[in-house]
Amino acid sequence: MTPNSTTADRAERELPAIFLEALEGLFGPRLHRGEAMRLQHGGSEAHFTPVPPDAVVFAHSTEEVAELVRLCVAHEVPVIAFGAGTSIEGNTIPVRGGVTIDLSEMNRIVAVHAEDFDCTVEAGVRREQLNEHLRDMGLFFPIDPGANATIGGMAATRASGTNAVRYGTMREAILSLKIVTPDGRIVRTARRARKSAAGYDLTRLMIGSEGTLGIITEVTLRLHGIPEAISSAVCSFDTLQGAIDTVVQSIQIGVPLARVEILDDLQMRAVNIWSKLDYPELTTLFFEFHGSPAHVDEQVAAVRELASANGGGEFHWSNLPEERSKLWKARHEAYYAAVNLRQGAVGWATDVCVPIGRLAECITETRADLDKSPIPATILGHVGDGNFHVVFSLDPHSSEEMAEVEAINKRLVARALAMDGTCTGEHGIGLGKQDCLVDELGDAVEMMRLIKRALDPKDLFNPGKIFTLAPVEGASA
Amino acid sequence: MTPNSTTADRAERELPAIFLEALEGLFGPRLHRGEAMRLQHGGSEAHFTPVPPDAVVFAHSTEEVAELVRLCVAHEVPVIAFGAGTSIEGNTIPVRGGVTIDLSEMNRIVAVHAEDFDCTVEAGVRREQLNEHLRDMGLFFPIDPGANATIGGMAATRASGTNAVRYGTMREAILSLKIVTPDGRIVRTARRARKSAAGYDLTRLMIGSEGTLGIITEVTLRLHGIPEAISSAVCSFDTLQGAIDTVVQSIQIGVPLARVEILDDLQMRAVNIWSKLDYPELTTLFFEFHGSPAHVDEQVAAVRELASANGGGEFHWSNLPEERSKLWKARHEAYYAAVNLRQGAVGWATDVCVPIGRLAECITETRADLDKSPIPATILGHVGDGNFHVVFSLDPHSSEEMAEVEAINKRLVARALAMDGTCTGEHGIGLGKQDCLVDELGDAVEMMRLIKRALDPKDLFNPGKIFTLAPVEGASA
Repeated sequence: MTPNSTTADRAERELPAIFLEALEGLFGPRLHRGEAMRLQHGGSEAHFTPVPPDAVVFAHSTEEVAELVRLCVAHEVPVIAFGAGTSIEGNTIPVRGGVTIDLSEMNRIVAVHAEDFDCTVEAGVRREQLNEHLRDMGLFFPIDPGANATIGGMAATRASGTNAVRYGTMREAILSLKIVTPDGRIVRTARRARKSAAGYDLTRLMIGSEGTLGIITEVTLRLHGIPEAISSAVCSFDTLQGAIDTVVQSIQIGVPLARVEILDDLQMRAVNIWSKLDYPELTTLFFEFHGSPAHVDEQVAAVRELASANGGGEFHWSNLPEERSKLWKARHEAYYAAVNLRQGAVGWATDVCVPIGRLAECITETRADLDKSPIPATILGHVGDGNFHVVFSLDPHSSEEMAEVEAINKRLVARALAMDGTCTGEHGIGLGKQDCLVDELGDAVEMMRLIKRALDPKDLFNPGKIFTLAPVEGASA
Repeated sequence: MTPNSTTADRAERELPAIFLEALEGLFGPRLHRGEAMRLQHGGSEAHFTPVPPDAVVFAHSTEEVAELVRLCVAHEVPVIAFGAGTSIEGNTIPVRGGVTIDLSEMNRIVAVHAEDFDCTVEAGVRREQLNEHLRDMGLFFPIDPGANATIGGMAATRASGTNAVRYGTMREAILSLKIVTPDGRIVRTARRARKSAAGYDLTRLMIGSEGTLGIITEVTLRLHGIPEAISSAVCSFDTLQGAIDTVVQSIQIGVPLARVEILDDLQMRAVNIWSKLDYPELTTLFFEFHGSPAHVDEQVAAVRELASANGGGEFHWSNLPEERSKLWKARHEAYYAAVNLRQGAVGWATDVCVPIGRLAECITETRADLDKSPIPATILGHVGDGNFHVVFSLDPHSSEEMAEVEAINKRLVARALAMDGTCTGEHGIGLGKQDCLVDELGDAVEMMRLIKRALDPKDLFNPGKIFTLAPVEGASA
């Protein structure tokens, strides 16, 4: 077992010359040791201190990944998988150095089985690329975390986003994975059948494991037919409770909402500034409805009625694609809009998820807590799942602000846990929420450690993420 | 590590007196050592040779289960969880003896959170009991494997059934589990949030682990609103291809089928005899549609048109609850109907699942293979998922028939795997499909063994199921 090493002692180390030689032989010009490339792979979109890897390689095949893995294991060098770098809990920062394996050039769409409603893609394929490829076949891949992330990265962090209320998360969207295990084997975790009861669910174990149990190189995804009709709608509310009651009652009567997003008043102001729009600066719901034309009309009518009964203002709906694009572009840019409420600010995004009956209470209390601080912070979320985000717009040079946000974040998580919610609905644990994970799941984290140790006994796969390894009392194999 | 022991050497063993004394102290009259009770827990609904456990206890709380587990681990006695005993791959047969822990008296509905669309139940709650409890709240739990199984057993085998095409399987239905781990800890695998990205997905790892990684004592389930309108329909087809094309095209145009079941001609004959009905004895689809009245009408009209274009006969549909009950009662009894095609026969049920585009081909080839044998065998399945069953009606005294069915089953699985399908869609591996699992997933089974060893190093939890443990080369913790 490699002892837990800190960033500091890692910086003292050098990659062994024989290891570098082998790397050079394998990857040639796709091995990078320059500072710019290393820094680019050592940061994140968020507030974490960057730590560059010792080397970066761009892999072009699963076999190359397997060779790299065997090499890293033989020389006890950490290995970190990297996709688009859009994760926000520091999930890909190589805190113990090692080799970052960039999978973004493994971006082939391997197969589309239109008749089976599935496809297989390499890990580096981006979700927008995939949907462009599928469009002419009348199919789409629904998971949409906002960022144009890689499918492999979305699998590794168990991403979800705006469509999850109807179509589920990466957990539901993935049929099978091709992975390189820490012992250098290439393994498929399942076949392409829609369901299976064949042994342990390795697919789901790998989804959300953040690169700590092996490296995902190919993903087989469920697809859906592009709906015949799509409508979107926007409605602002006098009260948060009114907005959330509208959603809960819609679900209760069986409206299959495809998307339903909540943005608070400050987030709406940020969106108006950033995207040059003129929405009322009130708590607002963005909706999307999918189905046959008649069924979409029926859904819109039902939700409009509920919104009106719950204090909603004008219910703007549209089935024009350009209106819809404008709406969802504004939603997708909401994070950047929020960060840019202050010039020169850096973003800190956090997310929690609670049972939907507690959501109004959780958001209200959180808003009150945020309002006590001068740091601008917006709330937006996937209200149909009980999941919401807080985005802070932070002075990067102020350690006071950093400490204050940390404290607010801690209270946010404690509030969500007290409501039997989770410390993260879709961002993952990464570096940022390791204490929260223990608060949330207690001894279950020991079970995770046992699994990590069993599959990656040298702690080389994205080490220091989700949890750090410590001796497990009485554990033996 | 306990060496792999055969049934034969197990029979030589005795439970240690000190262990029995402790068991007596814990369970009093709920400890059973009589032959009748042991035999009742040593068999299955299927063709496997029964093996009685050495003792049976009825647990009444998670804490009792934990105490039993600690005792069993201390004395190296195998422990097997038992629910309703309706599994069909020998999943609960104590092949190495030990203590069977019957959870059927842990049947409290712990909490229903109607506003969150979820509930928590003890593992021994049966699905019909739960739905009766929920009915007045306008909620239902959709997973329906046919048998009135326990929720804990359904979780342990990753059950699904007729509603999975719309509502998913136990994999999607479970939010969280309370489990007793092999080291005797009580752990919750997740909170009640609808989604979470917090660490490894222990919930999904436990679902389908067949009692080999710990014992599930409580289950938190997603619920759904009872649809405003429900219609059912029956339609027979000249050809299998026509029936399956109807389903695939329905999914393609976005009809959210709630149930769609296929029964072949021999299965329809069996159903007619057993349930005293007079359906045409042709390949038949049973449908169910959920939604608003207008949306259900629209769905029925769309599917009726597709059925007619694909050679379907009369399309009998009804929104009368009594018609619907009759239909689904016939479907639920299909297994017994099939077994009883011969007097005094015993059943052998198997299932595979393939990508839906290959389903017609897989069923056609399987029917041709079955027709070469004099043993009656019917085909029925959850066509929307690509999952189907073969039910053999077997002479229990004929080893030739047993061998013949084994060979047919082997060919069935090989056919499904060649189509990138799975050896079991919903029955699990148990004793019956261990070789198939290796054929399906190869080295991934080694990964499962590593996990099993890490969590249950003494191989005491339902040992001998899914796979047997053999030394893993180079494994160390």
